[in-house]
Amino acid sequence: MKPELIIKHARRFATPFRVTDGKKFRLRDHDPADTLDFTEKDKPRAKEALATGVEALAELQDKLYAQDQWAVLLIFQAMDAAGKDGAIKHVMSGINPQGCEVHSFKAPTSEELDHDFLWRCSKRVPERGRIGIFNRSYYEETLVVRVHPKILENQKVPRELLTRRLWKERHEDIRGFERYLHRNGVLVRKFFLNVSKEEQKRRFLARIDTPEKNWKFSAADSRERAFWDDYQHAYEETIRHTATEEAPWYVVPADHKWFSRVVVAAAVIDALTSLNLAYPEVGEKQKAELAAAKAQLLAEK
Amino acid sequence: MKPELIIKHARRFATPFRVTDGKKFRLRDHDPADTLDFTEKDKPRAKEALATGVEALAELQDKLYAQDQWAVLLIFQAMDAAGKDGAIKHVMSGINPQGCEVHSFKAPTSEELDHDFLWRCSKRVPERGRIGIFNRSYYEETLVVRVHPKILENQKVPRELLTRRLWKERHEDIRGFERYLHRNGVLVRKFFLNVSKEEQKRRFLARIDTPEKNWKFSAADSRERAFWDDYQHAYEETIRHTATEEAPWYVVPADHKWFSRVVVAAAVIDALTSLNLAYPEVGEKQKAELAAAKAQLLAEK
Repeated sequence: MKPELIIKHARRFATPFRVTDGKKFRLRDHDPADTLDFTEKDKPRAKEALATGVEALAELQDKLYAQDQWAVLLIFQAMDAAGKDGAIKHVMSGINPQGCEVHSFKAPTSEELDHDFLWRCSKRVPERGRIGIFNRSYYEETLVVRVHPKILENQKVPRELLTRRLWKERHEDIRGFERYLHRNGVLVRKFFLNVSKEEQKRRFLARIDTPEKNWKFSAADSRERAFWDDYQHAYEETIRHTATEEAPWYVVPADHKWFSRVVVAAAVIDALTSLNLAYPEVGEKQKAELAAAKAQLLAEK
Repeated sequence: MKPELIIKHARRFATPFRVTDGKKFRLRDHDPADTLDFTEKDKPRAKEALATGVEALAELQDKLYAQDQWAVLLIFQAMDAAGKDGAIKHVMSGINPQGCEVHSFKAPTSEELDHDFLWRCSKRVPERGRIGIFNRSYYEETLVVRVHPKILENQKVPRELLTRRLWKERHEDIRGFERYLHRNGVLVRKFFLNVSKEEQKRRFLARIDTPEKNWKFSAADSRERAFWDDYQHAYEETIRHTATEEAPWYVVPADHKWFSRVVVAAAVIDALTSLNLAYPEVGEKQKAELAAAKAQLLAEK
């Protein structure tokens, strides 16, 4: 497929789910089962499109690496079983691992709790020329921590700083951090894989009923369902206050995995093409050096 | 000396040099030779005061460490030979090194240049309970880089981001970063050791003429004197745009080392006392545990 066509298709799948201004954002306006005008019987076509997208992605990443100026940070957040790991695997598997690193952020260690909340993430911001993927991120600080404010007690933040403005301040600090990253050549894109409560239940049951999926299930995940509405509220607030032009959120319908992966791939392609990537141009001096090296090689006996 | 007296004295030496609102800040209003109402013959008294201050500091730091909630970040910036290293040595030497770490930031390595400009510093922000000292810092990005914009080329920031707004943006990003740190329990204090051009010359000559000081001198330092006015302008702009209530600058007169060290010690004491530090209180349950442990120890045969 021609590059222009890839870009056009990418836009078509990515733009409807992109949020750059959270003011009027309401989660209930976003249907987790949305597939645009595709139906189940388009699934094979969608898989083909994904394969083409992954190829395009690999090429773009090669240029990103060669140009060595921009870094790309992709952040994935979701409820359990929404398909984060699968999306990362299927969208990013075509990419040269030398130019791509994934960090999964679990519950903070005691060393991490001893620091400011961005600390463990900011030191893992990808270097120039690379794609960095955060599987969960500092956004946990306005999601799980907001749903379970007891966690704050372990963070050892001085009491007097835990005021009613806390979430507002964290949103503001995150916005400031991402704006800073953008200004310094780190392109940030954020993905919320939006799964429905019913679909999560189906996936949990499948994990329980399928022996080779058992390892994916923990009873704690299931217990978190009791806080579903609180999580929805925390996601809505977070997206509302941290969606910006430089660092947009994609609210990806996640009830159909085949569709959500196409959307993620499309958004990443759209992001990379926005950078006008190109292989570095070789100057006259370098060309002369190349010619000289060639002559020398050919003269070898 | 009583704690209240130490605090009162600390304020007296620190407050006159504190800048929390840069709007009207002009460097030429600050005399590098200022010693308040002290003269050369008060030097012995000043040294005594410093010794008392260092003791007070050590006690405060012990509480900071025990309480394990706040971290303290002290940033030192200055022209060469202004006395940064000496101030750090003389003010902080009484402190338990387990609770204090100094990072000197030299010219960035190629790994550091591959990242956003705060990266190398933010991962060294001290953990809770500790004092972290930055000998130079991310402020170099608005000082030496501003004076020598050619350095930007090595930073590999995408060209299109290097606009006329660059310094304004960097100031804003730094303000945002320090506000974030404060909100997360990292107290930030910044010191500009303000030496005069004449005094720098005297100190350079002493470094050249005294064999055991020779190692401190590099011809490159001397060459930077040609950019003196540019540096003054960069410092003025930096302080003007990054002095805040949460993260004040201290413009420390540095022509008299004995005086500048007193000011630095006073400012650090003032900062630490503002935290209302105290040893953690032991609850009833813990008291019972202590009593039980004691009984057990005494019952040992």
